[in-house]
Amino acid sequence: MTPPGLHLNLFLHDTGHHEASWRLPDSDPHGHLSIEYHERLARIAEDAKFDSVFLADSPVLWGQVGRRPSGKLEPTVLLTALARATSRIGLIATASTTYNDPFNLARRFASLDHVSGGRAGWNIVTTAGDDAARNFGLESQPAHVERYERADEFLQVAKKLWDSWDDDAIVADKERGVHAEADRVRPIDHEGKHFRVRGPLNLPRSPQAYPVLVQAGSSEDGKDFAARHAEAVFTAQQTLAEAKAFYADVKDRARAAGRDPDHVKILPGLVPVIGSTEAEARAADAELDRLIVPEYAREQLAKTLRVDPSTLHLDRPLPADLPTEDEIEGAKSRYTLIVELARRESLTVRELIGRLGGGRGHKTFAGTPEQVADTIEHWYREGAADGFNIMPAVLPSGLEVFASEVVPILQRRGLFRREYTGPTLRDHYGLPRPANQFALAAV
Amino acid sequence: MTPPGLHLNLFLHDTGHHEASWRLPDSDPHGHLSIEYHERLARIAEDAKFDSVFLADSPVLWGQVGRRPSGKLEPTVLLTALARATSRIGLIATASTTYNDPFNLARRFASLDHVSGGRAGWNIVTTAGDDAARNFGLESQPAHVERYERADEFLQVAKKLWDSWDDDAIVADKERGVHAEADRVRPIDHEGKHFRVRGPLNLPRSPQAYPVLVQAGSSEDGKDFAARHAEAVFTAQQTLAEAKAFYADVKDRARAAGRDPDHVKILPGLVPVIGSTEAEARAADAELDRLIVPEYAREQLAKTLRVDPSTLHLDRPLPADLPTEDEIEGAKSRYTLIVELARRESLTVRELIGRLGGGRGHKTFAGTPEQVADTIEHWYREGAADGFNIMPAVLPSGLEVFASEVVPILQRRGLFRREYTGPTLRDHYGLPRPANQFALAAV
Repeated sequence: MTPPGLHLNLFLHDTGHHEASWRLPDSDPHGHLSIEYHERLARIAEDAKFDSVFLADSPVLWGQVGRRPSGKLEPTVLLTALARATSRIGLIATASTTYNDPFNLARRFASLDHVSGGRAGWNIVTTAGDDAARNFGLESQPAHVERYERADEFLQVAKKLWDSWDDDAIVADKERGVHAEADRVRPIDHEGKHFRVRGPLNLPRSPQAYPVLVQAGSSEDGKDFAARHAEAVFTAQQTLAEAKAFYADVKDRARAAGRDPDHVKILPGLVPVIGSTEAEARAADAELDRLIVPEYAREQLAKTLRVDPSTLHLDRPLPADLPTEDEIEGAKSRYTLIVELARRESLTVRELIGRLGGGRGHKTFAGTPEQVADTIEHWYREGAADGFNIMPAVLPSGLEVFASEVVPILQRRGLFRREYTGPTLRDHYGLPRPANQFALAAV
Repeated sequence: MTPPGLHLNLFLHDTGHHEASWRLPDSDPHGHLSIEYHERLARIAEDAKFDSVFLADSPVLWGQVGRRPSGKLEPTVLLTALARATSRIGLIATASTTYNDPFNLARRFASLDHVSGGRAGWNIVTTAGDDAARNFGLESQPAHVERYERADEFLQVAKKLWDSWDDDAIVADKERGVHAEADRVRPIDHEGKHFRVRGPLNLPRSPQAYPVLVQAGSSEDGKDFAARHAEAVFTAQQTLAEAKAFYADVKDRARAAGRDPDHVKILPGLVPVIGSTEAEARAADAELDRLIVPEYAREQLAKTLRVDPSTLHLDRPLPADLPTEDEIEGAKSRYTLIVELARRESLTVRELIGRLGGGRGHKTFAGTPEQVADTIEHWYREGAADGFNIMPAVLPSGLEVFASEVVPILQRRGLFRREYTGPTLRDHYGLPRPANQFALAAV
């Protein structure tokens, strides 16, 4: 049997994606620091045969500490713990190419891939924002184009390092006294604009060779980067038409870059709010929005829009004179998405905050399990998605109901796997294991 | 009961500290990449009530790949996995202040401390050698004094970041909608010669506040650094007299720096080779030395001594005209130790290689369990050590026999704990939990 094509990733986010989810009576406001809490979530997702779990990240304390659980365990550390609590599900960590060294980061992902038996993924981000820059000796962030240029070279270096050991380098010949063959391990001698790295990596090649490479930027630079490097793309899409256009655009760019478009999986975010009736789902959604403290959200929105908070009146639309995307130096696509959402639906600031509070720009869908499954199938069959990045508004309850109510429907319809077909994350996503660029050259 | 004062750390090193240990019939030459292998070692050490396990590290592929298992899992990743397989033993990872950013590294150690429930330790190294430098865009390593200057400022920054959240910052007040109190989390605004870091850390304060700070450099700069920052010192000492002098020297420096010398534990390395008779132990040691491939070792020795390999004749003493310690820019104390060992005992190059192959400069002791316990007690009572960094020549067998034969003797003599008295690594070493420098200032 060919494995069904739909892919599901669980976006882990403390008590859920809705900013007020932590205020619900059953929510654990300390779960973000608890391994046991994350283990429970990962096991539910693995029992439901999700492809992967995913952790967003930024090397900065983001937002306001009063608003919701803030501060996070470093993703490669947290996912290593989850690797030992699970056996099949993929483990995708976000890490920045702007604020890391390729040698250290390539090694850490290779380590996670070894520890997990080939289940590591890397969500590659260039990290927007001056606040992050100020944690690393800079006054302000490098320009968008420069961050992506560095990211591209960072990936070249990382791939060379992951190829610096041949798969068969270790011979462990006790008789001869040769542990690894010296001619199967080589320096990379990379010399570029941003990096000079000698290598080799101080770690043999890992089960997947490279972690699955994931990307989430939807700007022009972001889409070009995705076309060259990404094997899965997380994206925020509000409408089917926009999602289809984005899907076709990225697949075309991948084809133009000489890659098989089937090896770039497009996964829009989906915030399901599930009830036994549509009305019950909508009521749960409204109850969450009622718990939002609007002052936090207004301040954050003003920061994203680069305007003074006093110009945002809760019961009026956004001001007319906002910057254009070209003037924004980070998170460009997110900026445009928010402004277009507000204008398309003529939302007041308070209404916009409600929409962003739930999904932070991702598509929120409140309905019955059947309705959620219908939406997923519709987008999948219409060529808008290869699968979804599932972002429950409330955790763990939103995951539990998705796993127990929605996943079986998708399985019955033949859209989603009933069992894993291989041990690695590449197996789950149907991605090839990268050939070794240096071993090939030697043939 | 006051806990007995002797401390034992297990230095994990694939198949053992002897370079030829991997060639023994029972050794697992793939163990260095296996979590299960390391879990087994950590559990044996925990059952024996060791204070901690420890991983050395350097961001470079060190030595020759044929000689022994090479390439390592990144220590914070590996120890996170071990944190989930154990519940009490401390977990000490080596990381470089020269080739990391303080923000990222401070966060990773705080994450390990959260994940392990307060069992993290950081062995702070400045990373000698041009090969490592070339993995990070440099032609050659920064000067010794500059590396230590950077390390000192790195520690200042890390401590400020670990103090950027008050212990009671998280209030999780669902009613008010306040997760953490904004005035208990603050930027650090560090501006120094090597670093400008705004903060705060994106992670609440961890169980131990700071990981236990460990240091292993024995140069003058290294000892000064230890006196200012270290809470445990790993050191290589060949004779009781030298060990006593080192012990007194570091304790004096700590006192002069205004610290309680009892809060700086001195742990010399000890390579026990244990047999049921002394003759059996010596035979096992000789068998290991017979498995050394001298060509590997000669090349490595030449590199350490900064001489051409052709000048080292296996059956003659070291050449007379070697560089002085002042001319060495890294691993100064190790260089001097090797040269002094060879000269003091009039060793040929072959004999020296045998000594270094077993302990790499650390004290090797072959004998019965009773004799090993006697040596430990003697050094401890003579004021040469607060405990030992145990480096079994062969793993896991050397650890198993130490745990089952030597530890019970030390326990019977009242020198070593029979049970852990607290949950954290600071509890095991009898070290205080650091006060928050900012919260104190606010009083």
